[in-house]
Amino acid sequence: MTAYDELMAFQRETEALAQVAGLLGWDRETMMPPGAAEQRGEEMAAMEVVLHARRTDPRMGDWLDAADPAGAAAAAAQLRLIRRSWERSRLVPSALAGRIARVTSLAQGHWAQARAAEDVAGFLPVLAEVVALKREEAAALADGGDLYDALLDDYEPGATAAELGAMFGALRPRLTALRDAAMDSGRQPTVLRGTFDESAQLALSAELATVFGYDTARGRIDRAVHPFSSGSGDDVRITTRTVARDPFNCVYSTIHEVGHAAYEQGIDPAYTLTPLGQGVSMGVHESQSRIYENQIGRSEAFAGWLHGRMEAIFGDLGVGGAAGFYGAVNRLERGHIRTEADEVQYNLHVLLRFDLERALIDGALTVRDLEAAWNDRFAADFGYPVDRPSNGMLQDVHWSAGLFGYFPTYTLGNVYAGCLHATLRRDLPDLDSALARGDTSPATAWLHDRVQRHGGLHRPRDLIAGACGVVPDEAPLLDYLEAKFAAIYHL
Amino acid sequence: MTAYDELMAFQRETEALAQVAGLLGWDRETMMPPGAAEQRGEEMAAMEVVLHARRTDPRMGDWLDAADPAGAAAAAAQLRLIRRSWERSRLVPSALAGRIARVTSLAQGHWAQARAAEDVAGFLPVLAEVVALKREEAAALADGGDLYDALLDDYEPGATAAELGAMFGALRPRLTALRDAAMDSGRQPTVLRGTFDESAQLALSAELATVFGYDTARGRIDRAVHPFSSGSGDDVRITTRTVARDPFNCVYSTIHEVGHAAYEQGIDPAYTLTPLGQGVSMGVHESQSRIYENQIGRSEAFAGWLHGRMEAIFGDLGVGGAAGFYGAVNRLERGHIRTEADEVQYNLHVLLRFDLERALIDGALTVRDLEAAWNDRFAADFGYPVDRPSNGMLQDVHWSAGLFGYFPTYTLGNVYAGCLHATLRRDLPDLDSALARGDTSPATAWLHDRVQRHGGLHRPRDLIAGACGVVPDEAPLLDYLEAKFAAIYHL
Repeated sequence: MTAYDELMAFQRETEALAQVAGLLGWDRETMMPPGAAEQRGEEMAAMEVVLHARRTDPRMGDWLDAADPAGAAAAAAQLRLIRRSWERSRLVPSALAGRIARVTSLAQGHWAQARAAEDVAGFLPVLAEVVALKREEAAALADGGDLYDALLDDYEPGATAAELGAMFGALRPRLTALRDAAMDSGRQPTVLRGTFDESAQLALSAELATVFGYDTARGRIDRAVHPFSSGSGDDVRITTRTVARDPFNCVYSTIHEVGHAAYEQGIDPAYTLTPLGQGVSMGVHESQSRIYENQIGRSEAFAGWLHGRMEAIFGDLGVGGAAGFYGAVNRLERGHIRTEADEVQYNLHVLLRFDLERALIDGALTVRDLEAAWNDRFAADFGYPVDRPSNGMLQDVHWSAGLFGYFPTYTLGNVYAGCLHATLRRDLPDLDSALARGDTSPATAWLHDRVQRHGGLHRPRDLIAGACGVVPDEAPLLDYLEAKFAAIYHL
Repeated sequence: MTAYDELMAFQRETEALAQVAGLLGWDRETMMPPGAAEQRGEEMAAMEVVLHARRTDPRMGDWLDAADPAGAAAAAAQLRLIRRSWERSRLVPSALAGRIARVTSLAQGHWAQARAAEDVAGFLPVLAEVVALKREEAAALADGGDLYDALLDDYEPGATAAELGAMFGALRPRLTALRDAAMDSGRQPTVLRGTFDESAQLALSAELATVFGYDTARGRIDRAVHPFSSGSGDDVRITTRTVARDPFNCVYSTIHEVGHAAYEQGIDPAYTLTPLGQGVSMGVHESQSRIYENQIGRSEAFAGWLHGRMEAIFGDLGVGGAAGFYGAVNRLERGHIRTEADEVQYNLHVLLRFDLERALIDGALTVRDLEAAWNDRFAADFGYPVDRPSNGMLQDVHWSAGLFGYFPTYTLGNVYAGCLHATLRRDLPDLDSALARGDTSPATAWLHDRVQRHGGLHRPRDLIAGACGVVPDEAPLLDYLEAKFAAIYHL
């Protein structure tokens, strides 16, 4: 065996173990008996010990130094990703990694309690500990560079806060202006009313998954409180949820998660259980889920087909035909909660978090001043106050889980989706006639070819630039949103 | 930290990882998408590599040599079990362990194909390979001792084939005589006829699990082709199956698996994720599933209650009231299949396998002569010929999976159940009045106290002897069977 072969054989086992660790998470959210939570914590921690030991195994360094990709692009990319993981894993002392794992596990429990009790003061001590530990981790990773960038790199390799900040700075004024114009137009679409059988919603969810190309021979759909997708290769599972009064929740959760799953299922099978066998970054992942959900799933053509299917299942929806239905699935509304926000305002929620978490990691903002900073910024961007902490800084789990650097990838994903969608529409001028028949295959085949099948082969921005023929920026997303909502709101 | 503490901390992680490996098996049989089978194989193999490395870790030897149980019985038992696992794991070269894992994984596929095609000749080459490898493993483990005993020790620590052979020799003539007398009596109970709604069967399954004390906060019930239970501590899951024309299949599969699960769930929580935190042997495990299923679940008193419940759910069962129902759930029938056999004949199926696999491992029987040996023995014990290989030597997965030494624990479990039941009836003379109300708690509480809560603390035979006050033998099982079936068949 060559050093490359030895390295890849070892790495393949590590990837298989990482899949096992992922399955433990899936099981916890879908199947695990409630009384098993503590035991599951120990099982997951034991898997992390095993994975960390393998990722920092000294033999990895020897193999990496001796390995020769023999000119193959895929082999070179494998080596690049393995070296990156090896170097990053070794930079964080395992005592620190263990402390972060323990404190964030604890902090998530504190967060859930604090959110239920609207108790910011009770949450701050543990949050301060998490921030301090993540700053320590960032310093270990940054090696004199930018602290926040060092954390961001875990979710979006190669991205920098400065570059994202510039992009987001260009988004913010046009998004608020669009939102204000729509809300002031006096043209709000009708709201869907009534209750909708939840097993019929689940049957529709399964149908929509198939319509968007989800392969249930290599996946399954279950219910979870917070929908997610998980797994790679031949075992990519999604979850959805049902709300009796709001079938759109189930419909668009499903389409969103199918977008993530289609990416994983669509990767070249030759990459399965290798570093190339997973989505390349959170931003690119989110671009797939968002383009499935929004640019395709909430398009006028597809909404027309969906309206027909839903009236066939649930009877008259009372929203005023297909045109009213299109408005109903794209309605802009006031609200405090990121995960419930519409296509326009969602990014404003993300930008707020990005600026605050950057300041927390840089040290410009302390945890003690976080609530006031959140509330000030929210009032400035949304025009009304935060009424309670669970509608403000206590609404998301991310910070208690130590996921600093994750939030901006949501909006970066939307930006990437905007670029991809503009190119897709140019390449497939007749796409709407297929979508109007409930046929998403021209769009999903295009995304499979340009994005999904490549897995981790290209760097994230190179992948999107290659798919679109230009370096991605925020303009296509803004153009798309402005055109779409101008039409819906008669602006 | 003392050496004992270090050892136990390391072992605790190993136990947690073993639980994870178990969950992968559960998921494969209940939830896994069909297309994920190959990937799951790699995931399970990677877990085995990790577990084997930990079980043979050189530090274990140092800790074991230095550890002091400080006079505590539980600590001494922990050390005894850890040392046993460490020594056995180190005796088998890891190349041999890997070869056995690969060949048995392959052989199970060959077996399934051969069974479907009734193709003994196609199965023999891979079976010969499995037998050769298991003989090699046995030689490594036996260190000059009996080969079969070395394998048996994996499932029933401390048991010997000679001792089991003597016990089984005493069972065989009385079981065949009882069966023949019943079948010749001309008093066959009525058979249940009709079809029974499968979701109603599942609801009854859930009710029965609760009736027998299964804690669903620390477990769950799913469907599987071959019912099983899995997991320890706070996550003990069971499976059942439904057959539209035979609701007893679901009923008694459930009660059987709840017996296994109650054992695991009932172990002292202080032992969770330690070597003491699991059932001590397959024989003791089977004693719990069998006493739940047969001595309790098929008792006249409990069957009377179950008859009422089933008529309330399914309407008139047409078996002639409670007395007829008691006969129907205890009916003796001709048949070739072990897993479908009644309480009397089940053990005859096991004894046949025990004698044949002993001969295979000792080298007295070759794989080439196995089919003829099976068919001769079956005709001798059952009085009619094997009509096809899937009803003969191709019916069970065990040998293709390398599980030599497993079969006898089924009958040993029945023998233990017989001893426990005799003592239980002496201690609880009024048990039937509770069972007639569907209240199993006096019996399950007795079993919890005498057997289940102790986990791996005592050696298997010592545990049963302690529970019964005498060294266990086959007499109580035979006495119970003869009395029960004499009454049902008016012998």
